[in-house]
Amino acid sequence: MIDEEICPADPWQVRETRLETSLLGPMESVFSLANGYLGLRGNLDEGEPYEISGTYLNSFYEQRPLPYPEGGYGYPEQGQTVVNVTDGKLVRLMVDDEQFHVERGVLLRHERVLDLRAGTLRRDVEWESPAGKRVTVRSRRLVSFTQRAVAAIAYEVEAGDQEVRITVQSCLAADEEQVKVSDDPRVAAALSDPLQAVEQDTEQHGAVLLHRTRRSGLLLAAGMDHIVEVDGDHREETDVREDWARTTVVTVLPPGGRLRIVKFLGYGWSTSRSTEALRDQVAAALNGARYAGWDGLVAEQRAYLDDFWDSADVEIDGDANLQQAVRFGLFHVLQAGARTERRAIPGKGLTGPGYDGHAFWDTEGYVLPLLMYTTPRAAADAIRWRHAILPEARDRARTLGLAGAAFPWRTIGGQECSAYWPAGTAALHLNAVIARAVDRYRLVTGDDTLERECGLEILVETARLWVSHGHHDASGVWHVDGVTGPDEYSAVADDNVFTNLMAARNLRAAADACHRHPELAARLGVSPEEPDVWRACAHAVHIPYDERLGVHSQSEGFTRYAAWDFPEKRPDDPLMMHAPYFQLYRRQVCKQADLVLAMHWCPDAFTDEQKARNVDYYERITVRDSSLSACTQAVMCAEVGHLETAHDYAWEAAMVDLRDLHGNTRDGLHIASLAGAWSAIVEGFGGLRECESGPVLSLAPRLPSGISRLRFNLRHSGVRLEVEADHEAVRLRLREGRMTLMLYGERVDVSAQEVVSRPVVPLEPALPPPRQPPGYAPRRS
Amino acid sequence: MIDEEICPADPWQVRETRLETSLLGPMESVFSLANGYLGLRGNLDEGEPYEISGTYLNSFYEQRPLPYPEGGYGYPEQGQTVVNVTDGKLVRLMVDDEQFHVERGVLLRHERVLDLRAGTLRRDVEWESPAGKRVTVRSRRLVSFTQRAVAAIAYEVEAGDQEVRITVQSCLAADEEQVKVSDDPRVAAALSDPLQAVEQDTEQHGAVLLHRTRRSGLLLAAGMDHIVEVDGDHREETDVREDWARTTVVTVLPPGGRLRIVKFLGYGWSTSRSTEALRDQVAAALNGARYAGWDGLVAEQRAYLDDFWDSADVEIDGDANLQQAVRFGLFHVLQAGARTERRAIPGKGLTGPGYDGHAFWDTEGYVLPLLMYTTPRAAADAIRWRHAILPEARDRARTLGLAGAAFPWRTIGGQECSAYWPAGTAALHLNAVIARAVDRYRLVTGDDTLERECGLEILVETARLWVSHGHHDASGVWHVDGVTGPDEYSAVADDNVFTNLMAARNLRAAADACHRHPELAARLGVSPEEPDVWRACAHAVHIPYDERLGVHSQSEGFTRYAAWDFPEKRPDDPLMMHAPYFQLYRRQVCKQADLVLAMHWCPDAFTDEQKARNVDYYERITVRDSSLSACTQAVMCAEVGHLETAHDYAWEAAMVDLRDLHGNTRDGLHIASLAGAWSAIVEGFGGLRECESGPVLSLAPRLPSGISRLRFNLRHSGVRLEVEADHEAVRLRLREGRMTLMLYGERVDVSAQEVVSRPVVPLEPALPPPRQPPGYAPRRS
Repeated sequence: MIDEEICPADPWQVRETRLETSLLGPMESVFSLANGYLGLRGNLDEGEPYEISGTYLNSFYEQRPLPYPEGGYGYPEQGQTVVNVTDGKLVRLMVDDEQFHVERGVLLRHERVLDLRAGTLRRDVEWESPAGKRVTVRSRRLVSFTQRAVAAIAYEVEAGDQEVRITVQSCLAADEEQVKVSDDPRVAAALSDPLQAVEQDTEQHGAVLLHRTRRSGLLLAAGMDHIVEVDGDHREETDVREDWARTTVVTVLPPGGRLRIVKFLGYGWSTSRSTEALRDQVAAALNGARYAGWDGLVAEQRAYLDDFWDSADVEIDGDANLQQAVRFGLFHVLQAGARTERRAIPGKGLTGPGYDGHAFWDTEGYVLPLLMYTTPRAAADAIRWRHAILPEARDRARTLGLAGAAFPWRTIGGQECSAYWPAGTAALHLNAVIARAVDRYRLVTGDDTLERECGLEILVETARLWVSHGHHDASGVWHVDGVTGPDEYSAVADDNVFTNLMAARNLRAAADACHRHPELAARLGVSPEEPDVWRACAHAVHIPYDERLGVHSQSEGFTRYAAWDFPEKRPDDPLMMHAPYFQLYRRQVCKQADLVLAMHWCPDAFTDEQKARNVDYYERITVRDSSLSACTQAVMCAEVGHLETAHDYAWEAAMVDLRDLHGNTRDGLHIASLAGAWSAIVEGFGGLRECESGPVLSLAPRLPSGISRLRFNLRHSGVRLEVEADHEAVRLRLREGRMTLMLYGERVDVSAQEVVSRPVVPLEPALPPPRQPPGYAPRRS
Repeated sequence: MIDEEICPADPWQVRETRLETSLLGPMESVFSLANGYLGLRGNLDEGEPYEISGTYLNSFYEQRPLPYPEGGYGYPEQGQTVVNVTDGKLVRLMVDDEQFHVERGVLLRHERVLDLRAGTLRRDVEWESPAGKRVTVRSRRLVSFTQRAVAAIAYEVEAGDQEVRITVQSCLAADEEQVKVSDDPRVAAALSDPLQAVEQDTEQHGAVLLHRTRRSGLLLAAGMDHIVEVDGDHREETDVREDWARTTVVTVLPPGGRLRIVKFLGYGWSTSRSTEALRDQVAAALNGARYAGWDGLVAEQRAYLDDFWDSADVEIDGDANLQQAVRFGLFHVLQAGARTERRAIPGKGLTGPGYDGHAFWDTEGYVLPLLMYTTPRAAADAIRWRHAILPEARDRARTLGLAGAAFPWRTIGGQECSAYWPAGTAALHLNAVIARAVDRYRLVTGDDTLERECGLEILVETARLWVSHGHHDASGVWHVDGVTGPDEYSAVADDNVFTNLMAARNLRAAADACHRHPELAARLGVSPEEPDVWRACAHAVHIPYDERLGVHSQSEGFTRYAAWDFPEKRPDDPLMMHAPYFQLYRRQVCKQADLVLAMHWCPDAFTDEQKARNVDYYERITVRDSSLSACTQAVMCAEVGHLETAHDYAWEAAMVDLRDLHGNTRDGLHIASLAGAWSAIVEGFGGLRECESGPVLSLAPRLPSGISRLRFNLRHSGVRLEVEADHEAVRLRLREGRMTLMLYGERVDVSAQEVVSRPVVPLEPALPPPRQPPGYAPRRS
């Protein structure tokens, strides 16, 4: 368990005060550096010990067979798994004739710092070899936001009070030994040594290795270059083999003497380009990095992040953990999404091999809201990726016997990779979540360029999907049957409220967009009548409501199902680890917010009283076995006035990885939960919502007792808004221009000329604080 | 396609008039010989050509891994697959120096006859070798009903008009090359060469080979012995290796000279006995066979079958195909069930590797009704098998979080082997079907010995399962949610009518049985109150009914679902081959009778009008992609007065293999459909039903226009009843004793003293003949 002592609260950094080998795995994820294109796990420079060694390139994957003991029509036959590409992080150190290893000799001091403003990972180590020689090692690592193919390491060794022979081996290593990802020997076979050597190149101060994946046939190039600075004589040489390259620097340091090596890394990959083109591309990346130099890269990184924080920062007074965690989250969401450039944002970003490196609805549902308000360009690129995989989504819809496009539940390259359809294909809501992101991007940015460029086509194709899957019953009510909502413990249900509301919203958004762009719509083959059909379905949509209980039924019949028999003691594992789907699916137990998420994302479909009653009802049966739940529960608890509970949930969403709350941070960070922490604060305590008519932004800040002041920034329609609230007042500042927004339900005009200040309007909750199942109350230390 | 020309209608035999190599596979199944313990496919004596070579021992299986790309709690990890054991059918023939092969030389004549009264397969061949030598080969084969471990072959070669050197190689061959059963290389690996040699024994005129399966560790012994009769000199020798044994007989036949070899085969297997014990057991079986001799075995076989036909025969005048097919079906059902002796009756009997050799609900649902009325001892043994696997069923229930026992959807050894839970574990109705068989056995035989011996425990444990899975809603109605009924195109549904009615019946039967045997019940831990709980659940069970349509809804909401969009032209394959479950599950399309089966098996739960309306409704949406459907549709169409449609369905059920209607007869016969043909006739046209109160048997014979006379036999409570009907009258004859039954709703007393004759009471159907989806009308040539 990561705790305050190992990782103390600090507003702008995550600092590891000592090396705890049992925490190697989660800390590798926490200390990941990435830019959306390239990601390096926080492995130790010398490579060992490690739990999972990882270097990832966005969308660089290997195929693997998906074996079914009983197959079915439309089951995907090929899986995709992110590949640990050629490792360039490796810098091995010999102190005299002893290899530096934190578990040998004496580790006198160890500190690592992830600096959220600098965008670097610092490591400071003092070590005494078994032979009694002391060295100080300082390494600095970055993955450049400004040069997306580039990472760099500044590695410095300082001799202690004795002369010492120092040998540094800086390596590229392909096909490192991996953790076992599957019990299936065929899958393991497909993923062990996925890289086949293609070509090697020795440069003056480094090398380039080219490999190709065995089955997916993707071409990879990884290169390194070095600048060596040393007080005195040294020798440098580079060896290259098919699967590794090694630049060795040897010197003898006098007492207090220093050796500093700057290692530049360049990466590139392609599905179609030639070996030569890719080799030259990587060489160019290395040249660019060398031209900037270490200091230049650091300066560019700082400037990039200054700009980010300027419009994205969240300040929280009163809860130092939450303050740290929300910035940690913002930083990692940026790292996941900054430079994806029309590739997916995976569920784990580029921080680990979890979920095979797949992207899910997490992106549009949880990550893009944050990016839209802080880094809209990155959000636009994520939407462009969905547009880019429309051909695969259309194919999938045809396979399913449906019209339009059915986006993959999980994928890297665009093809459906979900091998269990009740929790994959049946989660059709994903398509409406993507459509919502498209529509919301326009609302938040006030810019319909993207809609014209590609958004309209997504809206139209998803609308067509819904019309082909839904149907009108004999009395004209429109139903969506046999789908799985967000709650994966209630699969293959009829008329899931979340799905139906989101589908209706999808249909209306598509119709509205066609109305805005009639010519573009016509070019997509939308007849003048088609949007009327969409609106008619949306209008007639069935929303199950249980009159007897006075709550919405998550799906048809849900509130009639048997209760889940919660034991007195909460089990250690998720329910799905000790109960079969056969039992889970027809019991009143929710893996995660589902009806509650519907209230968060479709607020206008519920009255205040319904929201209060629904929150109360579903809190009692929700177990949060998914990390996507706490943030939504925070937002809705806040909305109905349970601010203390909301604070607990916000803490849980934000600390998911800094406390390894799900026990699987080693496999990668929970990017959506980290983004969800921002939602918990900004939408929960800030009350941020978007309205489709009138002023877009709506705010209603209300703070829990443990937070004395909250400040956050939003980009909206090209202007920057700062919202600051404490328990008495709300202050709104605009950096430029003017805008109108709703504050506590009233129109407020804000301009760059003056700060608008208003008293907080308190909210009395309609019901007492909600109860959770035994052992499932939200955690806050 | 097997047709009339290749396989003409004949009342007591199935005759193949010529060898059509494209039909080798289905004819291998059709000509299978078995006794429930040992089965030989109808492969040619010389082994080649073949489509699937098969020799099976009931419950002798190999394990194989079940690989899941996305696993889940409670998924079975080990599958079981029937093994093609050591082949003793092989008798190779050399004519001079040419190996006899039907595709070489000239096949002048070929005829095979499955004799349903003799219980033998005859083959008569005239062949001219490429060198111009003619021989006549006559082989006779049987699998003994009276000596269950024994099969025998009488093989005779007669020289043509030239002297010829004849070499006969009579073989045992283990681990023959097999057809590929799975695309999964691991599975293929597990099942290729599953037999590992343990020991070999050469006898004076034969050999015994012992093998053990690689993973399941089952020990197998196969032996052969020979009697050679020849006019003149011959030489005989036996060679034995690890995986084969060969007895070679060489002679020179003068023109018209004959060589006759009788080959006795003995088989045995064990999970626990020693190699020596098993070897001796097989030797004893061979001794027994040799003692009886070929003629003795043939005579025993005939006597056994005479007795069977005496109380099981069905005579049909007017439809020669149906006459042949119903006897073919009766014969194969007997072959599947006669000597299982507490082992399963697999879905394919012992006729092929289809469905991995697994047993399903087919046994209790379709096969046992026939056996109870004709061979009750075999039915009792099948029920004893279920009792024997109660420990595994209890374990499975625990895994599922349920009480009592949950029998496996598909298995050989008792462990659940179904790898897709929505069409396996969720089909909980299986347990009620087993309970019904237990209860019905008592009703039909009038004997409660079996109930006391083991039936009560099955009833109690299945009742407990239902109570733990079902639940009462707030208004006291009892529901069974998230289950799959017989219709596998509508899985994971709530309140499936069939399941609910059968569960209620299960609960009442258990309560009644405990009332009959209070001491035994107490020994099973049944408290005095427990049966009251069972009755209360049964009493409060929910049966969905659609008031608007005036029909029962197969499951909750089913009649509200979208219609299936049937194309004008029926697709060649089952719907599941070109539509995903995601679409099938929430459309109004039935793979097979489900609500209609509920009406067949729980007739008292429906009014006549409901039956007529329900038949009409469900006929329009049922596609019979399961071979278990036609028989039920026959019975219910007959009951509501659509006798011609019923005749078509009866034909389809009966001819399923003799015309290879599902295109997969090569994998083994559809034993349940063959048994269902008996139901179609006896329950459909004979109107046979059992009542729980009053006289047990109820009859209401009504014949379609194409059947002029029907006669069938029933065993009931130790007496034998013969029912004969034509379009005018019904005649009832009792062989011994007396009984009371219901005929057209009126009590009739029958005694051995006199034939009771009554006029047929016609029935006017309430609705016009039903319509089926385009292309799905029942087939009758």
